[in-house]
Amino acid sequence: MTARSIEKFVYRFDSHGTTEGDATMRHFLGGKGANLAEMARIGFPVPPGFTLSAALCDEVLAHGGKLPEYVLTGIEEAVRWLEGATGKRLGDPERPLLLSVRSGAAVSMPGMMDTVLNLGMTENVVRAIAARPEDTRFAWDSWRRFIDMFGSVVHNVSHHAFEEVLDDAKRARGVTTDHELDAEALQQVANGMLAVFKAQVGYELPQDPRAQLHAAVLAVFRSWNSERAVKYREIHGMTGLLGTAVNVQSMVFGNKGSDSGTAVCFTRDPATGKPGLYGELLVDAQGEDVVAGIRTPEPVAAMKDHWPALYDQLVGLCAKLEAHFGNMQDIELTIERGKLYLLQTRHGKRTGPAAVRIAVDLVREGAISTENAVRNLVDPDQIDQCLHPRFADEGAYRNAGKVLAKGLPASPGAAVGRIVFNAEDAVAWAARGEKVILVRAETSPEDVAGMHAAKGILTTRGGMTSHAAVVARGWGRPCIVGCGVFGVDERNRKLKLGDRVFEEGEWFSLNGTSGEVVLGAEPMTDATLDDNFQTFMGWCDEHRRLGVRANADAPHDAEVARRFGAAGIGLCRTEHMFFGEDRINPMRRMIVAETETERRAALAVLLPLQRADFLGLFKAMGAYPVTIRLLDPPLHEFLPHEREAQLEVARLLHIPVETVKNRVEHLAESNPMLGHRGCRLGITFPEITEMQATAIYEAAVDAAEAGVDVHPEVMVPLVGTHEELAHQRAVILRMAEEVFTRRGRRVPLKVGTMIEVPRAALRAGEIAKHADFFSFGTNDLTQMTYGYSRDDVGRFLPSYLSQGILPVDPFKTLDPDGVGELVATACERGRKTRPTLSLGICGEHGGDPASIATCHKIGLDYVSCSPYRVPAARLAAAQAALKEKGGKDLQGER
Amino acid sequence: MTARSIEKFVYRFDSHGTTEGDATMRHFLGGKGANLAEMARIGFPVPPGFTLSAALCDEVLAHGGKLPEYVLTGIEEAVRWLEGATGKRLGDPERPLLLSVRSGAAVSMPGMMDTVLNLGMTENVVRAIAARPEDTRFAWDSWRRFIDMFGSVVHNVSHHAFEEVLDDAKRARGVTTDHELDAEALQQVANGMLAVFKAQVGYELPQDPRAQLHAAVLAVFRSWNSERAVKYREIHGMTGLLGTAVNVQSMVFGNKGSDSGTAVCFTRDPATGKPGLYGELLVDAQGEDVVAGIRTPEPVAAMKDHWPALYDQLVGLCAKLEAHFGNMQDIELTIERGKLYLLQTRHGKRTGPAAVRIAVDLVREGAISTENAVRNLVDPDQIDQCLHPRFADEGAYRNAGKVLAKGLPASPGAAVGRIVFNAEDAVAWAARGEKVILVRAETSPEDVAGMHAAKGILTTRGGMTSHAAVVARGWGRPCIVGCGVFGVDERNRKLKLGDRVFEEGEWFSLNGTSGEVVLGAEPMTDATLDDNFQTFMGWCDEHRRLGVRANADAPHDAEVARRFGAAGIGLCRTEHMFFGEDRINPMRRMIVAETETERRAALAVLLPLQRADFLGLFKAMGAYPVTIRLLDPPLHEFLPHEREAQLEVARLLHIPVETVKNRVEHLAESNPMLGHRGCRLGITFPEITEMQATAIYEAAVDAAEAGVDVHPEVMVPLVGTHEELAHQRAVILRMAEEVFTRRGRRVPLKVGTMIEVPRAALRAGEIAKHADFFSFGTNDLTQMTYGYSRDDVGRFLPSYLSQGILPVDPFKTLDPDGVGELVATACERGRKTRPTLSLGICGEHGGDPASIATCHKIGLDYVSCSPYRVPAARLAAAQAALKEKGGKDLQGER
Repeated sequence: MTARSIEKFVYRFDSHGTTEGDATMRHFLGGKGANLAEMARIGFPVPPGFTLSAALCDEVLAHGGKLPEYVLTGIEEAVRWLEGATGKRLGDPERPLLLSVRSGAAVSMPGMMDTVLNLGMTENVVRAIAARPEDTRFAWDSWRRFIDMFGSVVHNVSHHAFEEVLDDAKRARGVTTDHELDAEALQQVANGMLAVFKAQVGYELPQDPRAQLHAAVLAVFRSWNSERAVKYREIHGMTGLLGTAVNVQSMVFGNKGSDSGTAVCFTRDPATGKPGLYGELLVDAQGEDVVAGIRTPEPVAAMKDHWPALYDQLVGLCAKLEAHFGNMQDIELTIERGKLYLLQTRHGKRTGPAAVRIAVDLVREGAISTENAVRNLVDPDQIDQCLHPRFADEGAYRNAGKVLAKGLPASPGAAVGRIVFNAEDAVAWAARGEKVILVRAETSPEDVAGMHAAKGILTTRGGMTSHAAVVARGWGRPCIVGCGVFGVDERNRKLKLGDRVFEEGEWFSLNGTSGEVVLGAEPMTDATLDDNFQTFMGWCDEHRRLGVRANADAPHDAEVARRFGAAGIGLCRTEHMFFGEDRINPMRRMIVAETETERRAALAVLLPLQRADFLGLFKAMGAYPVTIRLLDPPLHEFLPHEREAQLEVARLLHIPVETVKNRVEHLAESNPMLGHRGCRLGITFPEITEMQATAIYEAAVDAAEAGVDVHPEVMVPLVGTHEELAHQRAVILRMAEEVFTRRGRRVPLKVGTMIEVPRAALRAGEIAKHADFFSFGTNDLTQMTYGYSRDDVGRFLPSYLSQGILPVDPFKTLDPDGVGELVATACERGRKTRPTLSLGICGEHGGDPASIATCHKIGLDYVSCSPYRVPAARLAAAQAALKEKGGKDLQGER
Repeated sequence: MTARSIEKFVYRFDSHGTTEGDATMRHFLGGKGANLAEMARIGFPVPPGFTLSAALCDEVLAHGGKLPEYVLTGIEEAVRWLEGATGKRLGDPERPLLLSVRSGAAVSMPGMMDTVLNLGMTENVVRAIAARPEDTRFAWDSWRRFIDMFGSVVHNVSHHAFEEVLDDAKRARGVTTDHELDAEALQQVANGMLAVFKAQVGYELPQDPRAQLHAAVLAVFRSWNSERAVKYREIHGMTGLLGTAVNVQSMVFGNKGSDSGTAVCFTRDPATGKPGLYGELLVDAQGEDVVAGIRTPEPVAAMKDHWPALYDQLVGLCAKLEAHFGNMQDIELTIERGKLYLLQTRHGKRTGPAAVRIAVDLVREGAISTENAVRNLVDPDQIDQCLHPRFADEGAYRNAGKVLAKGLPASPGAAVGRIVFNAEDAVAWAARGEKVILVRAETSPEDVAGMHAAKGILTTRGGMTSHAAVVARGWGRPCIVGCGVFGVDERNRKLKLGDRVFEEGEWFSLNGTSGEVVLGAEPMTDATLDDNFQTFMGWCDEHRRLGVRANADAPHDAEVARRFGAAGIGLCRTEHMFFGEDRINPMRRMIVAETETERRAALAVLLPLQRADFLGLFKAMGAYPVTIRLLDPPLHEFLPHEREAQLEVARLLHIPVETVKNRVEHLAESNPMLGHRGCRLGITFPEITEMQATAIYEAAVDAAEAGVDVHPEVMVPLVGTHEELAHQRAVILRMAEEVFTRRGRRVPLKVGTMIEVPRAALRAGEIAKHADFFSFGTNDLTQMTYGYSRDDVGRFLPSYLSQGILPVDPFKTLDPDGVGELVATACERGRKTRPTLSLGICGEHGGDPASIATCHKIGLDYVSCSPYRVPAARLAAAQAALKEKGGKDLQGER
């Protein structure tokens, strides 16, 4: 016998003062139970009932095939109370108490667990009800529904077997819907179902309502550990839950004739946010009929015609619900013989633009504060939806079965175009005005021009921080990666999906927000940067402490970033600058150089080009800081690996192709991620750092002369020892002073480092001696802290996520425990050495809300993310600050 | 003017009670000064003098071109005292005080800094000395030596110009050695040299002895920062030194006729350790003549014939020195007109076998304690020399110019054989009785059979933890890696070195201790595991706290390890077992399997083979623990990458070659070190773990039935989250219980993990919930903590070491700051969760003395290293424990 570990496990609710729970008790009462209690508590018309705490779930499951004695006692007491509250009695044919038994965990798991309605019906009860002429049909209809639900939920009778009985009856009577069956027919159906029950279960349906109730409660608790529910929680990384609560509530019936009905409705339009009720009504029906879609419902506004007074009551209730919960609500209601009951309320799901409009409207209506609006009413991902075009109707293409596959949603937004298979084709097709989708196994820096020319990018390999993902996000270009069900034949320009083959030129639509790859050209709607958006973002800025910068490599990106509210550039990756037409060749000449002299000659050609790039960035960013990272990737990334391309390089550089080939082979590494890159380049070839530092400070002086209050910050990558930073800092300062002397003008000098190697985080105290700032490169830090290559993690990450070995992809959401500890340690040790040290993050995590919350908690000064992610980051930063202040959404975190 | 920051900076010494320093003051007095003071303090016959503290060095160097006033004052006072002590006066023609001015830092930097002898000579002084007939030649000889040294050391006059004057004189007189020049000739040489001085310096040689002294002191201080001295310290990672001290000492002369002489000698034979003086004597000569090798010296024992009383005095002094310093000494002495002076004493360098013998003899003679013997008298690397054959005479092949190149000394000992260029040839040649040296660019697991067949291994790439290095050390096979000056043409079986080409079959000798590659077959001597060795190792075991285990994969290795004193196996790498002839094919079949069923079928073939391997290990190790690591490397390592080999595999496995090729391509990774390996394999393919766990516990039960008190420890590699270990532990325990039930017998159950991912170290508190032990895999931990791929680090590591960015190769010596902090953190957090947690290290650092000291300090329970490194590790562990106890070698750490 399991020990009884909790004292209170039954929570009663009615609208007359007995309610014991409230909305804050989701953890024990589940979402449904807590909201029912809250509504009852403040007097909304809720049918009375009680909730069995989720804290019971474990004990009940461990107790074997029956409920523990003390639970039975608790239920009995609650039932007695409920009989008193309703004036009805379980099993009493005259005034029968009928019950719904519903599951409800703290976090919504739609359709995952079970429900039994109409419980308490027995042969005696149903006959007594049927004896009243107005209820005859209702009685048999409810009875056959109960037999079906009780049989399938409690005893695993196949729902299909019950359906057959119903179908036989309809066929026999030549009708197509349940609604057309009369009382007699339904009675026969019920009898047929009872026979099915006995045949499959081995005994008769229990005629003791208490036995029914105990069995149903047990079944609902057990549904928590059903295979599909466990899988669902695994997939969604849901941990820390007690189990499911069980809600036992007296039934109300919308199927008692033309003065009854059922409706589901939103308090505002979930697509646009426009005020006014939005939903569906069915007269003379039970709630499940709306969901089943058997009859076509009317709009909820039709209540005005059917029952004007009830409609006014509903409008009033909705306004009160919104005001009370501080949010737009999604409610279920039933009208039983002219009386309105609320059966459920919860936050309504909505589009991004709707979320922003609702938040702003609710503040203007005085229902909520700006703090509440920012903290609870808009998801950062919803902000993203406002920035990108999106599909006009996602439901349409899904219902039409046009979704070919689902990959990782690497960069949000919608894109429509014709598929091409290499960067050159993308550029050529785009040049003649075609919209194209670039499809590759994976992308490399050589593909950048083609990626820019494309409307969207689709890759079959790679993860959320793969090259394609990072570059696409930087441009706000929709992108789906790691879509491994496709096989891409780049040589023959074909895309394979099982037996299907898609040729070059086929129209595809990509939903970068959901990861869906859709066949054909879907209609789109524009981005929504209206006044509401601007107002809402202003409130975000008032509430946040974290600064938000952008990762940008080109003046255009910097302008976009500033328009979206970035207060500086947190990461300019100079290597991206080397892939332009005019510079890849000097870059390659530098790499194939065999002497320092040759290398310096090639660098001299690159210097003015880099200087011009930097000047553009400085001008675009004005008085905001611009953090420029010195050359980071291994040099082999700049050389082509195919024979043909090597020949081309040899021809252009006037050197033997063998030289190119040898250099490529010489530069090959077993693990390039851990190889000769980052400051290791600048230390072995100081002339590269000299050139870049000179270009940066010449550009800064140029900008200053043009009147810009310029703030360059030079960032040394991949430092692991303080000696490395001391070395590079000395080179940078020397070049800066040379420029200042030559030009007779100074600009502010700031040199810092990426903290992206675990050792650097640990040795931050020493490293800070040579650093004006730290910027956490959490992509690499995550790679090295976990020992995961982001290019190869696809081999085991899906399995790790589905088995719950990892709660989330650590490249998407910053690991607060391991990587986060290193970041926090580095901050603490760095600041101890240098209290003025500026601290930021520039990895891809800088745009992820959960990661931003971690950064806020650690106490960073700013996050830096893709330009298109800046508004979402501003919101996430504000939410992190507000959540720290305490208080939470009455209906729980979404 | 620099502030005077130290009070006391002059330390006087004489043998009559005035001595102010002692041997413990190396940091200030330098090694030479401290030892002189110590000898003087206890009454050895040392010419009196004084030492200027190294603490002055910085101030003097910062002061510009002259000595600070207070230093001049201090020197003047010390000179006055020295005049009193010697009864001579600086510049006094009658009784001139002549001085040597010598550098001497706390750590020896042979030949790096400067010396001026005979200082105090002037025209007047030399003439006065020369006026005494017995001293005429001596006077002019000493004068010309002074001019040369003063000119070149203090004024940068080219020594070559002085040499020309001397050569001219010899040519003019038709003689070949300096010794044959008479007084008149030497006077002319001196005059010629004075002319050179004036011509190059611009003024006459100073005739004021104090000016000479001040200039010489300044020059010696300055030599601390000479380019070659700075470079030397960089290369040897010497940091934390104050600078050089300056020793000013009254001169004694061995070149005053046949009752004078000079000698260098060891108190015991440095090659064998045999008691008795061992060294060289030159009659009528100064010390530098011995070093210059112009005349052939006599053995030091010849003193017995020349001056029997002095010889007896020397033997007595040597015994006293040994007793005082507790070690065999290397001394310099001068006999001036029948009186013996000691000029220097220090620990004598010696071979490994000599070190062991001397240590044991000194203990037996009652001169030192076993504690002292273990702590100070033998280096762990010297222990290594005892285990391996070595070259009979290293000097011989060096002098003969036979050293072709120097690589990294990856595995110690000497090997002689004929070079071959692939594993198959090595096996074939060895089978017909040839001794072979396997030469490869780098080795892979496919080469293992050939490596085993070879006497030694030479690679042109890779570092101290490359495949070749690790495998060779495990077998005690001499190995040199990363010898990049060679170009290896494996296809044509040729080795290139500049213009030279060595064909297959050429005889090479490898010195794995020094890294020298020697042309030809050098004579060797055997290993020295005599009684002295066993006695000494016994003392080590008495003094150490750390346990020592071995890394061993095969029963033979385990037997070697036990013979060398390993108390268990700390790491058995199961993957090495899969490369045998009989198992590589089932392994490959497992890898190319496309379904779990196929994979399980292949694993079923491997199971009995693995079981037999484990049984062998258990039997060899008896009651000691055997830690077995589950499969770790990425699967692609087991498949061949060349077309021909793939065809062979396809034929053997009866599958299309395309299947093999596709599988190889599918398994290819960008960064395999951070890819699908370690427990990631066992989690995605649990059937592999199931097979290995079953094989381990079946073998353990077999061993137990055969009477072995078996202690298997199953180790899960590459864990980064506690969920990973929980998953694998569950699989292992399940299989173990199945075996126990089936066989009706239990064996101890221990499951633990490698801590080799930074995150695992940080999350050790959680991970320890599922672990009975941690074993630190510091190879991978170093890779990930620094972000260095050990296979690629050769690109920048040499530059990092030479620039002083890194003090040592972190793959050789455990980084105590970064990686060490992670190890310490993991220990602390792990033990907090589970106080009984056993903690060890199994990376290659386990055999490195400095790393062992770090492990001791952190508080690990044991280290595990290659079998051949076990004795050295036992010594290093004892030294770490003794050093922790405090007290140190009187002459400083070697």
